[in-house]
Amino acid sequence: MAKRITNRSEDYSQWYLDVIKEAQLAEHSPVRGCMVIRPTGYALWENMKGALDQMFKETGHENAYFPLFIPKSFLSKEAQHVEGFAKECAVITHSRLQSAEGGVEVDPESRLDEELIVRPTSETIIWDSYRNWIQSYRDLPILINQWANVVRWEMRTRLFLRTMEFLWQEGHTAHATEKEAVEEAEQMLEVYRTFAEEYMAMPVVTGLKTESERFAGAVDTYCIEALMQDGKALQAGTSHFLGQNFAKAFDVKFQDRNGEHRYVWATSWGVSTRLIGGLIMTHSDDNGLVLPPKLAPVQVVIVPIYRDDEQRETVLEYARPIQESLKEKGITVKLDNRDNYKPGWKFAEHEAKGIPVRIAVGPRDVENGNLELARRDTLEKSIIPAAGISEHVSELLETIQAELYGAAKKRMDENTREVDSYEEFKKEIENGGFIYAHWDGSAETELRIKEETKATIRLIPLNSDSAEGACMVTGKPSKQKVLFARSY
Amino acid sequence: MAKRITNRSEDYSQWYLDVIKEAQLAEHSPVRGCMVIRPTGYALWENMKGALDQMFKETGHENAYFPLFIPKSFLSKEAQHVEGFAKECAVITHSRLQSAEGGVEVDPESRLDEELIVRPTSETIIWDSYRNWIQSYRDLPILINQWANVVRWEMRTRLFLRTMEFLWQEGHTAHATEKEAVEEAEQMLEVYRTFAEEYMAMPVVTGLKTESERFAGAVDTYCIEALMQDGKALQAGTSHFLGQNFAKAFDVKFQDRNGEHRYVWATSWGVSTRLIGGLIMTHSDDNGLVLPPKLAPVQVVIVPIYRDDEQRETVLEYARPIQESLKEKGITVKLDNRDNYKPGWKFAEHEAKGIPVRIAVGPRDVENGNLELARRDTLEKSIIPAAGISEHVSELLETIQAELYGAAKKRMDENTREVDSYEEFKKEIENGGFIYAHWDGSAETELRIKEETKATIRLIPLNSDSAEGACMVTGKPSKQKVLFARSY
Ligand SMILES: [Zn+2]
Ligand SMILES: [Zn+2]
Repeated sequence: MAKRITNRSEDYSQWYLDVIKEAQLAEHSPVRGCMVIRPTGYALWENMKGALDQMFKETGHENAYFPLFIPKSFLSKEAQHVEGFAKECAVITHSRLQSAEGGVEVDPESRLDEELIVRPTSETIIWDSYRNWIQSYRDLPILINQWANVVRWEMRTRLFLRTMEFLWQEGHTAHATEKEAVEEAEQMLEVYRTFAEEYMAMPVVTGLKTESERFAGAVDTYCIEALMQDGKALQAGTSHFLGQNFAKAFDVKFQDRNGEHRYVWATSWGVSTRLIGGLIMTHSDDNGLVLPPKLAPVQVVIVPIYRDDEQRETVLEYARPIQESLKEKGITVKLDNRDNYKPGWKFAEHEAKGIPVRIAVGPRDVENGNLELARRDTLEKSIIPAAGISEHVSELLETIQAELYGAAKKRMDENTREVDSYEEFKKEIENGGFIYAHWDGSAETELRIKEETKATIRLIPLNSDSAEGACMVTGKPSKQKVLFARSY
Repeated sequence: MAKRITNRSEDYSQWYLDVIKEAQLAEHSPVRGCMVIRPTGYALWENMKGALDQMFKETGHENAYFPLFIPKSFLSKEAQHVEGFAKECAVITHSRLQSAEGGVEVDPESRLDEELIVRPTSETIIWDSYRNWIQSYRDLPILINQWANVVRWEMRTRLFLRTMEFLWQEGHTAHATEKEAVEEAEQMLEVYRTFAEEYMAMPVVTGLKTESERFAGAVDTYCIEALMQDGKALQAGTSHFLGQNFAKAFDVKFQDRNGEHRYVWATSWGVSTRLIGGLIMTHSDDNGLVLPPKLAPVQVVIVPIYRDDEQRETVLEYARPIQESLKEKGITVKLDNRDNYKPGWKFAEHEAKGIPVRIAVGPRDVENGNLELARRDTLEKSIIPAAGISEHVSELLETIQAELYGAAKKRMDENTREVDSYEEFKKEIENGGFIYAHWDGSAETELRIKEETKATIRLIPLNSDSAEGACMVTGKPSKQKVLFARSY
């Protein structure tokens, strides 16, 4: 089979698109900026959703569903929110089409009194409901999550990383005290970190966004940031402490135990299909997608090898109990018995799709009681006895999960440096990676660095062991080093 | 607690809304026609989704995700489809807001070259993708399902039954032969029937829609119809054999085994959050929601009864192992240990929410090793020993599930009649229910009956044992009796 995936070293952007295409994860749709998530990609998203949803429920959250549309006037209520958000969005102005020559046209008489916006995020519509749900301290906390599609009118889109419509979850919680809300925001940051590291095998650093990178309407934005193979950072999840901003904008008060009326404290937090982009760029190689076993829709594929129908029969009879024993071990296994494709073609396909483990069995294996085992991550092959295979594969999947994380962590650590001077920073930033440096805390300096180097402050570490120092640009005092990178 | 649910006999429509409100399933949103699905309602939908999704996967389907927006021109491609569908819908014409006095306004410069429609259903956007996915018979069948939100600009909306935005699943399959596509459409009808009867405990009749009630673009529309407590029919799910209509509209051909190019055969099928409306109106009573155990988010609630802290301690210590033993049996159980609500208040709440079984334990039960068991469906209470409770409750849940179905089936059967004359029909239709009668097969007669009686043909039975006869209206020949009802 001809090589259909561009090498990373040659053209990283094209490599990324080729990996997605060959793994059949997603494709561009005729609607500019929107993607079609194909079954393989969606199965991956379902596994991610499943793991996250369980973690949300274990931390006391319930799911609900709020309307897709937001009245235009709602976006005017929280001033900062609209400043940061409402501008580029899908605006619904009419409610009817009518027949016209050769097709349909918008019926001008169906113009809406007030335009509707397709939700770019749901704070406004949700807090409008919360006003009716919250009267007393007994109604608090409200711990709700929503799985939904949202739309932001992006001009420059990229499959998974930035699309006009994307799938995500958005948590929206309401609390009686500031302390409780801050703890919630921090708890969900920790949920995201755990998910990224333990399921996606994607190491992340955590911290707070600077004021200029903060979510529109938030008091504090916590984030997880990952480092991609090309040395660029990816913001993979955010958790916002919203203070009383939305409670004030939507007049949401509760009566506390002493009968006093107080504004409610809020958080919101979200991750999206963007995580799939991060997953791809963390582990994949020049042969295609590499998936961590914990999220792989198919963990093991068995490929029978034969020359004729008789051999086919023999080999399949040998393969089926192997499949069965893996299934009983709770492993997701597929027996690829398609007769109209050759083994070599299947191998390439399974490799491109990132299936963690491949088992091949041919007539000689049947004779010897063996099978061939291949790891997708290292591409190592070995011949081993079929006896005890389920135990072996089960351990191997754990090993692969751990080693994928280990390799990504090593890469991140090797590409994380500290610099002291702006000269050094400007040189180092060209090599990509995470760079810790002192910053004077001003938006002006932040903007200057961005304009001169294309690097942004990814986060301010939460419990930094960095000493105080002087801003690398202005020499003004700095409490701690902050994390810079170029980013997606 | 004051009675907050209107009696069915008094005002059925208000009863329906009261049940939804008191069970906290959903509420109206500030966006006209859109609803907020509250956590209790969404948990119910999650259970329905989970069961359906498993049935879809067991029949070989995969999930995928297609764009929310459809270019206006796509809706012109399948003539019948646009005739039936495209007219009342949300039209996006602009992509930007701008600041204005006191808020935001639509930026007139952001007008789109081609308007986008928020999907009312996804045949067009999906078949546009299928064209690229299908070249050879080896690419067939394609068996895809999508869980999504869709929008139809309805003027008269009703929570769950008819809302502007609703959640649903839409299956879209592509096949090499007509036979295979018809079998698929019939298979999915059977999946819906099984789900309705075995999970929702809602008996349904199945059959084909008449031409005038058919899905826009379908050759045949199969449906399941249920009978609500007020004697009106509810269309609960449809499965369409689309013939080659969409393949021709979107030019989707495949090369068969002999190298010939042929148009692909198609089906589509869907059920929506409307099912929740059907569930409510099948089982609920004047005390509120009644849920079948297989779909209830909480199957058993335990309410401790006590006078003081000491008793509370004792009773909770007694209740916890009961909770544990139920949990081990795979039963979803909640211990309602809220201290700020009285038992009577809790009872009413659990009743309104339709929790199938309630266990109450007080100090006397602790002494005697007993507990009080209450069934939501029959409101029967009994005192039984706590020993062996999990086995007992497990059987009871099965009994409730079966008896709910039995009661609904009995009601449907009792309200299903056959009539021979139009006079009799006009009298009988006033009593509600399903009526079988002869019809001459013409759209004119169908329309006349509808205009004169508000009854529509719900379906043409598939394997009817009805004899041939004469149309009750025109006296013209009729092959079989068809099913009439007034409907939602
Ligand atoms: Zn917003
Ligand atoms: Zn359509």
